Amino acid sequence: MRYPAAMPRIALKVEYHGKPFAGWQRQADQPSVQGAIEDALARLEPGPHTIAAAGRTDAGVHGLAQVAHCDLTKNWDPFRLSEALNHHLKPLPVAIVDAARVDDDWHARFSAVERRYLFRLLMRRAPATHLNGLVWRVNHSLDASAMQVAANYLIGHHDFTTFRSSICQAASPVKTLDELRVEQVDTLWGPEIHFHVRARSFLHNQVRSFVGTLERVGSGGWAPKQVRDALAACDRAACGPVSPPQGLFLAGVGYPSDPFAK
Amino acid sequence: MRYPAAMPRIALKVEYHGKPFAGWQRQADQPSVQGAIEDALARLEPGPHTIAAAGRTDAGVHGLAQVAHCDLTKNWDPFRLSEALNHHLKPLPVAIVDAARVDDDWHARFSAVERRYLFRLLMRRAPATHLNGLVWRVNHSLDASAMQVAANYLIGHHDFTTFRSSICQAASPVKTLDELRVEQVDTLWGPEIHFHVRARSFLHNQVRSFVGTLERVGSGGWAPKQVRDALAACDRAACGPVSPPQGLFLAGVGYPSDPFAK
Repeated sequence: MRYPAAMPRIALKVEYHGKPFAGWQRQADQPSVQGAIEDALARLEPGPHTIAAAGRTDAGVHGLAQVAHCDLTKNWDPFRLSEALNHHLKPLPVAIVDAARVDDDWHARFSAVERRYLFRLLMRRAPATHLNGLVWRVNHSLDASAMQVAANYLIGHHDFTTFRSSICQAASPVKTLDELRVEQVDTLWGPEIHFHVRARSFLHNQVRSFVGTLERVGSGGWAPKQVRDALAACDRAACGPVSPPQGLFLAGVGYPSDPFAK
Repeated sequence: MRYPAAMPRIALKVEYHGKPFAGWQRQADQPSVQGAIEDALARLEPGPHTIAAAGRTDAGVHGLAQVAHCDLTKNWDPFRLSEALNHHLKPLPVAIVDAARVDDDWHARFSAVERRYLFRLLMRRAPATHLNGLVWRVNHSLDASAMQVAANYLIGHHDFTTFRSSICQAASPVKTLDELRVEQVDTLWGPEIHFHVRARSFLHNQVRSFVGTLERVGSGGWAPKQVRDALAACDRAACGPVSPPQGLFLAGVGYPSDPFAK
């Protein structure tokens, strides 16, 4: 690995709570996770900073292990950089949980070969307290087996036009979905459904479109085969409701070689 | 079970986030969980209400399954009562997660024969985001095995003066500790230590005194046998540091017969 003398590049693993932010992406007049980190970087090295991230999460969506990279002038030790950034990020709910030096042609977004999402759905009538903003709460119980049958129709190489937001900027609606696993988990707060979703890349609102549609299956409103038909329709109007953003976590990003491996 | 015609008694299972409250107990000029529930009851049946709870949690301490009881005039269906209370409790982070009719001599505090607490400790350097206020974060890793060795000295029938707050109002410092289990758990946020603590009743600050002292053992500052000596000293000055309230959850209350059993 060559370390160029100027502008060493550092990869950051970032955890954040989506609630106070208008999303990952920097915006002129609203708080964003990107803006918070760029502002913290400016406290360490004055001047404008622009960081790139593996996935642009929407307002209210959480990061567990978002990956971004920044270019700096000083030859920072990655651990000391993460500590300094965490100091300046306080009291915002954004934390640099790991940092590593990477090659100057490594790119958090373009080098990524996999994105993993977790969606948490809590099944109970009482409002959430500790989990407020961290789960989608539904009043009724859901049939996880039926949802898995329906989810299996979505796995593989498909035209996902049905599950794509109308403002999606991806060049093509054709993607390969590698995993869509529906797991029922007993937690201290009640029974949850965890959706584990994995692909090289995603369309805008794809996970929330999956989850909202599968919820209809779990509640008995849709038969699992209706999800197959909705996929085949290649028509946004065939999608079920889009789930709210609460409950969605960007859980990990895969690279050909893990930059954070010790 | 006799249901008296007047003032039917209802047991409530209560979940709450401790952060916005000065504790469970009603206070004249500060927000409390008890006050929030009593205010919600007054929306349903005008007039003063006084509810009793199994355990009075301190400021910042959470409820997962606190149990309280209330006396009402109308013959409420317990489920409808819980729904109505949750409606009026919004947007406070307090939720009635279960409700049941009980005999008029049943008492949330005096009928209880067991209290269970969970304490969550997160071991990592980065600040907590999603778990802010829900864990005690320490910068270093802890030796769970050493903490369990030390915890075992505390289990049983002892004079717990060392682990009792100076403002504790209990008649006697002698209690029987039935369980103090130290478990290391891998979570999405990093490695946690969960302390599972169970007894018929507790002294004020007893769990936090245990946890703060055991943390000293886990970090290597204390040898496990120092905890045995601290217990034997029967001296508050022999206690380790008291842990912060974040991370402490009243996880359950035991009764001779579970009032919420379906």
